[in-house]
Amino acid sequence: MTIPRLTDAERDAALGALSGWTLRADGLAISRDFRFADFSEAFAFMTRVALLAEQADHHPEWSNVYNGVSITLTTHDAGGLSHRDAAMAEAIDRLL
Amino acid sequence: MTIPRLTDAERDAALGALSGWTLRADGLAISRDFRFADFSEAFAFMTRVALLAEQADHHPEWSNVYNGVSITLTTHDAGGLSHRDAAMAEAIDRLL
Repeated sequence: MTIPRLTDAERDAALGALSGWTLRADGLAISRDFRFADFSEAFAFMTRVALLAEQADHHPEWSNVYNGVSITLTTHDAGGLSHRDAAMAEAIDRLL
Repeated sequence: MTIPRLTDAERDAALGALSGWTLRADGLAISRDFRFADFSEAFAFMTRVALLAEQADHHPEWSNVYNGVSITLTTHDAGGLSHRDAAMAEAIDRLL
């Protein structure tokens, strides 16, 4: 099953509804950097994101250095951004 | 408290005792890529590494994409590799 890629208008609307997420230069992914008090808080957040990701079967590309977490969302089956990325970004933001 | 950086001889001995870890080109960090069956297994591993890191108060720079985990170890207080990186790499390998 192929997931449709967002049109440019849909992408702009999705980004407009999010705060803190930026479009990658190639337009095919969105990213956000998060900062926490320490590693324990950062990894607690990552654990909650992992549960969201597994539930949605949509997994981030992400990295962590001590109290920082960087998350990139894209949909490989769509060759770019899909509604699943927008929904995951919203769900992640609701954790904060 | 400054942590002493490994000498070149100590570094080579530490790397010789590890398998799968590679020295970064600048000689200041070691890295290893891990591959699992799926995201659930990868994140379970990351959770165990997080507990090790918190216990040792020595945290990795790491990233995850679905079933892959890439870990880089370095000691900022040493400006390069220290015995703490070698000990953490050994502890991570014992999880497997």
